[in-house]
Amino acid sequence: MAKRVFSGARPTGRQHIGNYFGHIMNLIALQEEYDCFDCVVDLHALTTLESTVTLQQDISDMVLDWLAAGVDPEKSVILVQSHVPEITELHLLLSMVTPLSWLLRVPTFKEKVKMNPQNVNYGLVGYPVLMTADIVLYKGEVVPVGEDQLPHLETAREIVRRFNSTFGDVFPEPQAKLTEFPMIVGLDGRQKMSKSADNHIEIASSPDEIRKRVSSAFTDPQRVRKSDPGRPEICNVYSLRRIFTPDKVEEVAAACRSAEIGCVQCKKELAEAIADYFGPFRERREQLAQRPEYVREVIEDGARRASVAARATIEEVKTAMHLK
Amino acid sequence: MAKRVFSGARPTGRQHIGNYFGHIMNLIALQEEYDCFDCVVDLHALTTLESTVTLQQDISDMVLDWLAAGVDPEKSVILVQSHVPEITELHLLLSMVTPLSWLLRVPTFKEKVKMNPQNVNYGLVGYPVLMTADIVLYKGEVVPVGEDQLPHLETAREIVRRFNSTFGDVFPEPQAKLTEFPMIVGLDGRQKMSKSADNHIEIASSPDEIRKRVSSAFTDPQRVRKSDPGRPEICNVYSLRRIFTPDKVEEVAAACRSAEIGCVQCKKELAEAIADYFGPFRERREQLAQRPEYVREVIEDGARRASVAARATIEEVKTAMHLK
Repeated sequence: MAKRVFSGARPTGRQHIGNYFGHIMNLIALQEEYDCFDCVVDLHALTTLESTVTLQQDISDMVLDWLAAGVDPEKSVILVQSHVPEITELHLLLSMVTPLSWLLRVPTFKEKVKMNPQNVNYGLVGYPVLMTADIVLYKGEVVPVGEDQLPHLETAREIVRRFNSTFGDVFPEPQAKLTEFPMIVGLDGRQKMSKSADNHIEIASSPDEIRKRVSSAFTDPQRVRKSDPGRPEICNVYSLRRIFTPDKVEEVAAACRSAEIGCVQCKKELAEAIADYFGPFRERREQLAQRPEYVREVIEDGARRASVAARATIEEVKTAMHLK
Repeated sequence: MAKRVFSGARPTGRQHIGNYFGHIMNLIALQEEYDCFDCVVDLHALTTLESTVTLQQDISDMVLDWLAAGVDPEKSVILVQSHVPEITELHLLLSMVTPLSWLLRVPTFKEKVKMNPQNVNYGLVGYPVLMTADIVLYKGEVVPVGEDQLPHLETAREIVRRFNSTFGDVFPEPQAKLTEFPMIVGLDGRQKMSKSADNHIEIASSPDEIRKRVSSAFTDPQRVRKSDPGRPEICNVYSLRRIFTPDKVEEVAAACRSAEIGCVQCKKELAEAIADYFGPFRERREQLAQRPEYVREVIEDGARRASVAARATIEEVKTAMHLK
């Protein structure tokens, strides 16, 4: 039987190129080999008490992008975390076996405390407990994670071991599957592409929007005039060309260094390539968007399928803990 | 409309005289005036990770004692906390607005950390969050508490205020109703009557068992022989006589001081009075115990009625938080 994969993603709305290569492509690849649960973790979005006014729209936009890109609801269970309330039961029950000290030492927690010392809520501390509950509620065996998430997964494994040793072997110990993907630099050339840095290109953008976004991209700051030779190795437009125009990168690099091609032309070619790359995606997205109830149907069906697994786990957990 | 009262009690099994005067009498009095939710808080029992092997029996024994004593399922909703899983949803949601610092300063938490530094789990820290969720899930307006619980209730009120100011006025701010009842000293004469100190008398005990327990009671240590004059003011048998033989206490005190009555005789009279006091209770308990499914029916009905209120609250909370 195929191993079960659990992946969670915060509801960030319309997806950008960074999300696409960092997450969506991965979901699409995994569903061919594994029994995948793709979860929109809306409750996690509350841990930092961001405004939730756009939450429902963000969920819907994100799932629509997933579906249009090729995440297949026949192959994967696509669900929204809070739609299966058993998650909160398991979160509470796991909280009883999780030492506070394990949570206070998690690096991302420490970072968040540093950034926002006024906003350290009990829910924020419990982030790894909730993440553990997410995985083991569905008896996830494999969890695709980036390097920065490894400490969370280690905590999850420790919580599982502590639960199992206290109440009996209920959960499999989840294994990390380190996902490797190109780090997509944002249009500002300084940091990872992200919505919050506003240095992103949404994959559902029209060719015109893509052109506008790309034309605003920061390039080699030493190249002021077209006649100045450029340094593709430090240019983020060039790094995007490596992805979207792989056949032409050597040629472009040479032309940039010799000042044969200017940034305006180079960006134009990149924008066209991005627009072409996501052409079939945009088309499919438009088709799907014509049935506004479609996304809702997909996540309702996902919740139904996920609930079956969740209820079975909760029954087993409650029996092990003598709660029934 | 009658105000709603929420009271929670840990599942401690067969009830003793201390429970009877400290809690059960209160439930019986309140149900005449208020809309009462009497909750067996089984999830709280997990915060200290005690063994849960006897949990179901403890719940059943406790509720049977309540019913036999006169807690009326027609007047009160008698429920078990974990039977209404919405409690865990609200617990998680409230955790997002509860600063960790509020929880770490709670006196009972500090005490538990001192007593058991190896066992400080995330769930233990969240005790006041779960207690708040208990109350406000049912929109409890009045909470009968002992003096030692006042800091918890103050935290509950703060959490409610923070939630309401962040997401809108969803919850009433619960008011404490300080319950005054005689502090029942245990048979050891040293501490509050409790099961864990094994200084208790179960209210369902047979007259014979009561006699045995009372005869083991510690009295005035200076009174070695019957001819020694006693000091009723420091004698716990005398303190129990004030409750169970109120008409005779002055007479007994005098007879003790003048050594006219010995401890053996005094204890015999007390044991008889206790056995008489709980005679009708024992009878009713026996009747109820003849229908072993009765307690289960009561708590199932309680869960059904409580669920209606709980679901309405959760819907309101989720709407306020844009989770739907």
